[in-house]
Amino acid sequence: MSMSRGLQNCTPRPAQLLDSDVFRRQGHQVIDFIAEYYSRISDYPVHPYVLPGFLSRRLPEAAPSQPEQPDPLSAALNDVRDLILPGITHWQSPRHFAHFPASSSTIGALGEALAAGINVVPFTWAASPAATELEVVVMDWLGKALHLPKSMLFEGGGGGTLLGTSCEAILCVLVAARDSKLAEVGDGRIGDLVVYCYDQTHFAFHKAARVAGLRKDNCRVIPARREDMYALPPAALQAAMQADVEAGLIPLLLCSSMGTTPTTAVDPIRELCAVASPHGVWVHVDAAYAGSALICPEFRHLADSVDAVDSLSMNPHKWLLANNDCCALWLKQPSALVAALGTDDDVILKDAATAAATDDGVPVVDYKDWQISLTRRFRALKVWLVLRCYGTDGLRDAVRAHVRMAAAFEDMVTSDARFEVVATRLFALVCFRLRPPTAATSRCEADDLNKRLHAAVNATREGPYMSSAVVGGAYVLRCAVGSTLTEERHVRDAWKVVQDHATLILAMY
Amino acid sequence: MSMSRGLQNCTPRPAQLLDSDVFRRQGHQVIDFIAEYYSRISDYPVHPYVLPGFLSRRLPEAAPSQPEQPDPLSAALNDVRDLILPGITHWQSPRHFAHFPASSSTIGALGEALAAGINVVPFTWAASPAATELEVVVMDWLGKALHLPKSMLFEGGGGGTLLGTSCEAILCVLVAARDSKLAEVGDGRIGDLVVYCYDQTHFAFHKAARVAGLRKDNCRVIPARREDMYALPPAALQAAMQADVEAGLIPLLLCSSMGTTPTTAVDPIRELCAVASPHGVWVHVDAAYAGSALICPEFRHLADSVDAVDSLSMNPHKWLLANNDCCALWLKQPSALVAALGTDDDVILKDAATAAATDDGVPVVDYKDWQISLTRRFRALKVWLVLRCYGTDGLRDAVRAHVRMAAAFEDMVTSDARFEVVATRLFALVCFRLRPPTAATSRCEADDLNKRLHAAVNATREGPYMSSAVVGGAYVLRCAVGSTLTEERHVRDAWKVVQDHATLILAMY
Repeated sequence: MSMSRGLQNCTPRPAQLLDSDVFRRQGHQVIDFIAEYYSRISDYPVHPYVLPGFLSRRLPEAAPSQPEQPDPLSAALNDVRDLILPGITHWQSPRHFAHFPASSSTIGALGEALAAGINVVPFTWAASPAATELEVVVMDWLGKALHLPKSMLFEGGGGGTLLGTSCEAILCVLVAARDSKLAEVGDGRIGDLVVYCYDQTHFAFHKAARVAGLRKDNCRVIPARREDMYALPPAALQAAMQADVEAGLIPLLLCSSMGTTPTTAVDPIRELCAVASPHGVWVHVDAAYAGSALICPEFRHLADSVDAVDSLSMNPHKWLLANNDCCALWLKQPSALVAALGTDDDVILKDAATAAATDDGVPVVDYKDWQISLTRRFRALKVWLVLRCYGTDGLRDAVRAHVRMAAAFEDMVTSDARFEVVATRLFALVCFRLRPPTAATSRCEADDLNKRLHAAVNATREGPYMSSAVVGGAYVLRCAVGSTLTEERHVRDAWKVVQDHATLILAMY
Repeated sequence: MSMSRGLQNCTPRPAQLLDSDVFRRQGHQVIDFIAEYYSRISDYPVHPYVLPGFLSRRLPEAAPSQPEQPDPLSAALNDVRDLILPGITHWQSPRHFAHFPASSSTIGALGEALAAGINVVPFTWAASPAATELEVVVMDWLGKALHLPKSMLFEGGGGGTLLGTSCEAILCVLVAARDSKLAEVGDGRIGDLVVYCYDQTHFAFHKAARVAGLRKDNCRVIPARREDMYALPPAALQAAMQADVEAGLIPLLLCSSMGTTPTTAVDPIRELCAVASPHGVWVHVDAAYAGSALICPEFRHLADSVDAVDSLSMNPHKWLLANNDCCALWLKQPSALVAALGTDDDVILKDAATAAATDDGVPVVDYKDWQISLTRRFRALKVWLVLRCYGTDGLRDAVRAHVRMAAAFEDMVTSDARFEVVATRLFALVCFRLRPPTAATSRCEADDLNKRLHAAVNATREGPYMSSAVVGGAYVLRCAVGSTLTEERHVRDAWKVVQDHATLILAMY
């Protein structure tokens, strides 16, 4: 390295890259661009008609060495408008009814922007005290807003954290449960640990179990039945656990669901806990989507059973107006998490103030010990802003509006004798399908009709975009209401598109 | 649930929460707030003088049910200014020399804002085609900009992805390596797998190994020595691997470092690969910080040995102007990653277009299979904007400016006989300490002097903020130049503060 070492040679100054005036000017440009996108979002088909390679073929093979002159941001934003936006799936479109919503709001998006601007890394209390304290406060705020039991809040001896995704949350609790159990039975018995879920559980759970080093064949998948409304049946769980214990295996963790991905089924959590508890099994509730509904008093009863579980996670980025990404995880005993994920050999992160404060009796949370990663974003800022600026009433009203629209969609499906609602609607997802048109229609033919209907609906340029699921062995369409921009007319229009295509498809049958 | 189901009752409309005009108005407010913060950032002490509880005591116990009237965002921003900013550690302060930088830029922050505004969830190609394609393109762009071997790029049969953190990246490759190995030797032998690192390796590696279910005592930590410049000595690695093989254990993975956390040491990667290769060991390079330096031709030689490794990760959010979070991971054989983390039982995510396209011979990347989580952000947008708007020359110049400032700081340390530089400076981190003032000064006393110096420097209201490390058993101060706003005068001023406190402390000795 033969660089000149004099300070006088330090040009150009990187400080210009964070110049206040440039930031203001370019920031306004980006804000206007996003605002313009929202105002035109209905003009796009929800899902683009593109083939793989459509974009990569149009971009240069390497990054430019010099930015375009004179205004590289404007040029780039033009490309976002002309090349990228026509090729994305518009999750914020009012006609996006697929998957679960990616809940957006002005404050949620700006909360992310503000956190990105401030750009701190609050891995320990000392690394950015206010960021950690705000997270502690906001987790109790959010837990109270969702009517969670006090035992899961910091003020009740539990506590919570903001992670990116439910997959992360599930992996974290799985590792905490695993290490607690291995501390009892010995490190060598990892191959004997068994986890429990059912065929409606999100695949994230299987993946987390694999990542955590559990044996693939030690994940019990209990079949769900229509008569249980596709919830996890406690008797089958009991039988599975009993069999494992008799085989010398060690039941470790149950992942129960409050709002499954296919149908938003809700497990009988208290009954499941009664089965799991005698075996010393950790019970986690995956409430990724439906957890947001707990903000409504009419769903509050679902939280009643949560005092029996060990941990619960839900995603404010799914249905609580906090843009991607944001997963809230609460635990009754955060100490188990910290025992598994904590690190104390990192002298580089030590801070005298933290040590002194702990002596002082005030608990200090170092959130690096609550998650897989060291680095983390200041997500609490976004959640705090959303709670402050919309209020719990505002969030409740938004959830309710989506539930009402879904109920109306359900009514429309029910009023058309050609269709059936599959699985009871509980929140804002409606699973539905064409009934077999004749008594002679085979199961396979009925599935085929529904697949054709689904494809035709999604191929309608100004139509809705929905996803599908297999429920009770049958192919069903999923209409998930929850995009912030969705209004009553979009739901009505969506149903009209479904009906029209059904008429055409049935006419050809 | 006895809610009225008529659509006419859907008030208030959630659509107002993403209204284009409101977004524009509130967006400009937030941008102005951030711009104002940058212009005043030097007024804050880098690290706040606060005690645990300072913020939580000042906030209400629960979220408001109604937002403040008439302007909740302005009220919240006032609280950010008055309560939160005085309590954070200002990672973007020009006087922040602690840890490694959290690299910020106007375009990096606005890239996050733009992605949050568009708010898509590109877990599969189909879930947002342009987002996936842009990530594929940008990973090759970035790989080329960093002079990585073609074998790690998509165009050379490898490929890469954008994750949140190095911890995630390391966990992902560890699981990929583990499952490849277990497929050979049998699932039951997880307890026999051994991983290798050294005492300079980031603790993220130990944590990842634990999360992945490896035995705590199967992580070999090789001691580094001053005569190796605190890099990992190949001979010691060879001895450790040999001993494990002889003991019937199975060497799995080596985590080597390009730029360790304590001193930015660089391992002799080619020599380490020569040791690891005969044992079928996966070699990962953790280049979290120093990877960004590869954008400079003068550091390019460090990338020469990368063709011998299996994977490499680095953080554009550390030193390449891409705000938190952003980790780039490349692999020679992404198929091993997909084999471990891929899921194909998720009918809900299937898309006819993807299947058709794959038949067409165009490879389709589903990034959910390259990471722990399903949900992910559109990070590629930020990285693409940074590369486009600053150009590789712009990024190179920013890195060089920091390296030059650090070299100048090193010169200042060297010119003061009371101090010594500990470990050779390679990039923009200088590790230094007070020499023992007399021949009779014990090691412990010398450490104590340096601890006092460190505390005094960090307690200076208008002074720099640095962190520490233990290197070769000795307490050292770390001056990491890399904050975007840092200019020559901040480096000079920082050194003056260090010198002044040293004079006081030595006078009292």
